[in-house]
Amino acid sequence: MNDATRRPVRASIAPSAVIEDVKPQVDGGRFAVKRALGEEIVVTAAAFAHGHEKVACALRYRGPDEVGWSRIPMESLGNDRWRARFTVDRMGAWQYGVTCWIDSLASWREGYERRVDVDDMRIAAKVGAELIATSAAHATAPEREQLTEWARALREESDPVALRTLALDDTLLEIARAHAPRTGAAQSVNFPAVVDRERARFGTWYELFPRSLGKDGAHGTFADVIERLDAIRAMGFDVVYLPPIHPIGRAKRKGRNNAPAAQSGDVGSPWGIGAREGGHTAIHPELGTLAQFRDLVEAAKARGMEIAMDVAFQVSPEHPWVQEHPAWFRKRPDGTVQFAENPPKKYEDIYPIDFATTEWKALWQALREVVEYWRSQGVAIFRVDNPHTKPFAFWEWLIADIRREHPEVIFLSEAFTRPRVMHRLAKLGFTQSYTYFTWRTTKAEIEEYFTELSQDDSREYFRPNCWPNTPDILPYHLHNAGLPMFRVRLVLAATLAANYGIYGPAYELGENRPYSPKSEEYLASEKYELKRWDGDGAASLAPWIAKVNAIRHAHAALQSDWSLAFHPTDNDQIVCYSKRAGADCILVAVNLDPLRAQSGWVTLDLAALGLEDHANFRVDDLLSGESYPWRGERNFVMLDPARAPAHVFAVGRQRQP
Amino acid sequence: MNDATRRPVRASIAPSAVIEDVKPQVDGGRFAVKRALGEEIVVTAAAFAHGHEKVACALRYRGPDEVGWSRIPMESLGNDRWRARFTVDRMGAWQYGVTCWIDSLASWREGYERRVDVDDMRIAAKVGAELIATSAAHATAPEREQLTEWARALREESDPVALRTLALDDTLLEIARAHAPRTGAAQSVNFPAVVDRERARFGTWYELFPRSLGKDGAHGTFADVIERLDAIRAMGFDVVYLPPIHPIGRAKRKGRNNAPAAQSGDVGSPWGIGAREGGHTAIHPELGTLAQFRDLVEAAKARGMEIAMDVAFQVSPEHPWVQEHPAWFRKRPDGTVQFAENPPKKYEDIYPIDFATTEWKALWQALREVVEYWRSQGVAIFRVDNPHTKPFAFWEWLIADIRREHPEVIFLSEAFTRPRVMHRLAKLGFTQSYTYFTWRTTKAEIEEYFTELSQDDSREYFRPNCWPNTPDILPYHLHNAGLPMFRVRLVLAATLAANYGIYGPAYELGENRPYSPKSEEYLASEKYELKRWDGDGAASLAPWIAKVNAIRHAHAALQSDWSLAFHPTDNDQIVCYSKRAGADCILVAVNLDPLRAQSGWVTLDLAALGLEDHANFRVDDLLSGESYPWRGERNFVMLDPARAPAHVFAVGRQRQP
Repeated sequence: MNDATRRPVRASIAPSAVIEDVKPQVDGGRFAVKRALGEEIVVTAAAFAHGHEKVACALRYRGPDEVGWSRIPMESLGNDRWRARFTVDRMGAWQYGVTCWIDSLASWREGYERRVDVDDMRIAAKVGAELIATSAAHATAPEREQLTEWARALREESDPVALRTLALDDTLLEIARAHAPRTGAAQSVNFPAVVDRERARFGTWYELFPRSLGKDGAHGTFADVIERLDAIRAMGFDVVYLPPIHPIGRAKRKGRNNAPAAQSGDVGSPWGIGAREGGHTAIHPELGTLAQFRDLVEAAKARGMEIAMDVAFQVSPEHPWVQEHPAWFRKRPDGTVQFAENPPKKYEDIYPIDFATTEWKALWQALREVVEYWRSQGVAIFRVDNPHTKPFAFWEWLIADIRREHPEVIFLSEAFTRPRVMHRLAKLGFTQSYTYFTWRTTKAEIEEYFTELSQDDSREYFRPNCWPNTPDILPYHLHNAGLPMFRVRLVLAATLAANYGIYGPAYELGENRPYSPKSEEYLASEKYELKRWDGDGAASLAPWIAKVNAIRHAHAALQSDWSLAFHPTDNDQIVCYSKRAGADCILVAVNLDPLRAQSGWVTLDLAALGLEDHANFRVDDLLSGESYPWRGERNFVMLDPARAPAHVFAVGRQRQP
Repeated sequence: MNDATRRPVRASIAPSAVIEDVKPQVDGGRFAVKRALGEEIVVTAAAFAHGHEKVACALRYRGPDEVGWSRIPMESLGNDRWRARFTVDRMGAWQYGVTCWIDSLASWREGYERRVDVDDMRIAAKVGAELIATSAAHATAPEREQLTEWARALREESDPVALRTLALDDTLLEIARAHAPRTGAAQSVNFPAVVDRERARFGTWYELFPRSLGKDGAHGTFADVIERLDAIRAMGFDVVYLPPIHPIGRAKRKGRNNAPAAQSGDVGSPWGIGAREGGHTAIHPELGTLAQFRDLVEAAKARGMEIAMDVAFQVSPEHPWVQEHPAWFRKRPDGTVQFAENPPKKYEDIYPIDFATTEWKALWQALREVVEYWRSQGVAIFRVDNPHTKPFAFWEWLIADIRREHPEVIFLSEAFTRPRVMHRLAKLGFTQSYTYFTWRTTKAEIEEYFTELSQDDSREYFRPNCWPNTPDILPYHLHNAGLPMFRVRLVLAATLAANYGIYGPAYELGENRPYSPKSEEYLASEKYELKRWDGDGAASLAPWIAKVNAIRHAHAALQSDWSLAFHPTDNDQIVCYSKRAGADCILVAVNLDPLRAQSGWVTLDLAALGLEDHANFRVDDLLSGESYPWRGERNFVMLDPARAPAHVFAVGRQRQP
């Protein structure tokens, strides 16, 4: 024998059971899956052992700050796959994992059922008695006595018929299995989950510039926003998101239409944060006082609404930090502070913060204090401006740190950048993310993108919030478009995505003028000037938006994302999809063409609608109030944009033919 | 400020770069990917940083026992994906990983190109000079001097045209990047790869029972196998796999057709290992001596062939271990040794080994010594019987232990069980695996299964070896089938799989009698009796098999698995597929119907064949010798099973029209 055979055996015989492919999980447990209160986590895993050994599996889970685990048995799905589910009923950080062990009693029982030889039955009974006695040793009275007695009887009974009955006792078997030692057990890692409040799952956002709400040409105030709340609520919105409310820098301030120099009276961009009146924890004096801001927060709450605040970690040259903490900003070789730039463009009114400064701990602390300050003023939703331009590690730390004690806080990532970067930010902790919906216009694009958003593994961490417009983006298809196009885009956002928002009143009033044909900036953008929106004009979409949002509020099917299913149509201008929640089923057909009536045949996936083949059923159009008797999978739709961009059907119960 | 804001910052700013989704990998690096000598590992990863920072990526890899890493730059594929490749040129355990870091010089250069403002250009030159000076500090002469001079010139040059030329110097930039500190660097884990010899990738196996090769009714011997080697080689086989060659137990020996009791003269199953003559390291006396076995091993080598040996870790009741190591076997409560059973079936001639015995270390050592013993006799291929009935941990340890010093050793897993278990064994280290090909007969089944085998991620570790029959399996479609069916199944195995094998001479002689219509056992199975195969009968497929295997040996396209592509046909009885290796391209069309001529149109994926749209090309049928001029994607085939089951075309170069 050579050296190899004399080497000692460096191996381990345990565990025998194997766990693979636990789902859901993000990057092997490096990041958390996301859920909202009341949702389920359905855990599946492959689990097995060698040979013909049977295994049993348990799911363990625990909520925030729980030391002990809840354990539930997993159900076998066949082919070595297992499943169990639990509902998350508290906000914060959860964990779950899978345990699998050799189920010797189940293997014994399964073999016993197939035995016919009497001698073998007697010997197998004694083998079983040993296993049961082991369980008894791990049990307490009265089960210990039950098992001990069962083991004795199995050893002593010799009549084959009586023995068989005794061996196949299901009740005693379950008791014995419950107390059996978990031999050869394997454990998965503990996978993290974060649980948010319901608003994270379902929200209807309305972005507006308070300063444009003033009367008679005055600068708008928080009080003006309070006055407007009822109208916004009547439209069905529940989150009112405000651009930055902080003092706006004067030096290098940009003028109307982003002109390099402001003229006298130009109000500047709210994202040029910081002036002599203060920085990120101060309020622009013309908007009101802190007390008035708190009044606004409370007024929203009283109406079941919330104020969402902008977090834009950049400063104007006059921000107090520039003087107080010069090390937080990068210097150019000529000694001046490095302004924002994207050559050849220069943004000399904005200084980026140097997150990698040697004084980064003090800086990060200060930034956290900004968020914490506004949270302590009652804000629990933060829309974060351009998070992709700051280090990933900063966000992961900040969000976890704030949410550790305040898991109700929601962070929306405003990153319109490459897919990998947007997904990374979502993994790092952002509750919701802006999406490419803004630019997905064709049927193929919509089907592909929303299938990704609602069905791919990324749905475990990337929670979409879809916007047809923003103050930064008047997408090309809205350039000079009529209200029918605005209706199309809104009904898509509102029924495809449980979270969506608009920038208004620009949207409901159909503001459609681009700065230039090649630009997605608005002409006379509200970012640089006060606007006077004529909300009483006859052309407003407000009543129609109210109707769409009312449908969202009335139908649970539209309040979450994962049930989305597309149904083929024979017309490329008609996209058809459904969503379900229990018995509630909504079927939507949208005419993407804002100019012409379009018609076509829809081939329904009846199973996705909870209907049987060839079912007769009724569809009630919640927008028009009309109803149609439908039958089977093939049905006809015709949509005239002059009347409505879409059918939003409630799918009725199956009727008897 | 509350407690939360006073907490110290517990976070880290490094690394800034992110690496995700490194491929290939198996279970996050828990298991190795497999390659054969001369193959490539193409590594891709997603890598990026926040904001507009550019990153650079390097692939690192090292071969067996290498301490240092080879490093090569990765190429950007766009959308934050990167790729690099390396060729494995030594057998054994390799590692590879990805490093990504912030490429500040590339970001600087990219911005510089877009600058137009002269003052900015001067300031940016000074910023660049600082980066370059840092690189210089990490460089040695003469590059240190080159970089120092470049930095100086960038600081001092003031003419904008000269400055621009200076700043955009590609040669100096590459030198500076090569010596730049890798700030914000992220590293993936080291992923393992195992590299096997070429035989693991491409082998043609022939299983035979030596004892049936005797003359005039005598028990066959190793010398008889040596005599047969040239004929087997002439058929194109290069691995000759022998069922166990050890002494066969006499007690409880099974008779012909698996009869419960052997009659006088019955030879018993070779898998009933162990008798008074010895156990797993002994040779059945009637086969010959150890010296004669070594002669056989050498005789095979001399012909470019190899002997593969069976490893069946179970014993007959007479195996020496039963007396010497009673603790290695489980006792029944009546004190007898537990025999193998699958109730109600009992296999009293076989004792399973108790791998979980308290003496498991001595047991595992002994089993390793069995493999090591035969390895030292020149055997380097082991076909492992029923590995799924032994603990996973045992195989992982055994295979790694043997291959650490002998990476040339190949282990074939004979596990026909659930997919998860077969895959797990492959992950644990088995070089090759038996497959479900044996039962995949329809076009849809073949396309789905071989697409999985050749395209799914599991191909990284699961290397198929496809068998139309084995001594245990006469599949239903071969029951009483004629030679045309045997041709169909062989040409499928031989052209779909780089590794395939047959159990002969049963196969080439068309042995088709099942034990019963419901059984996949052979009637008068060779497992329990000596057979007399009439190899000179006119009905033998041997000459035709020789032709098929000659095509395999002549065409690199058929010697690996991953290039497989299926081409649609309009006839469900005709399956069409291609394989490529460089310029070598083989296109196969098989008529699955052994009884009737079938014809149909093939719609070729011309790109998969390396051809352009509408190409004119020639296909040469390597079986029939006939050639056809083909044009474009739609071409017609007709196959008469009376003549040939398949076209095996060499696809010719594109001709000028």
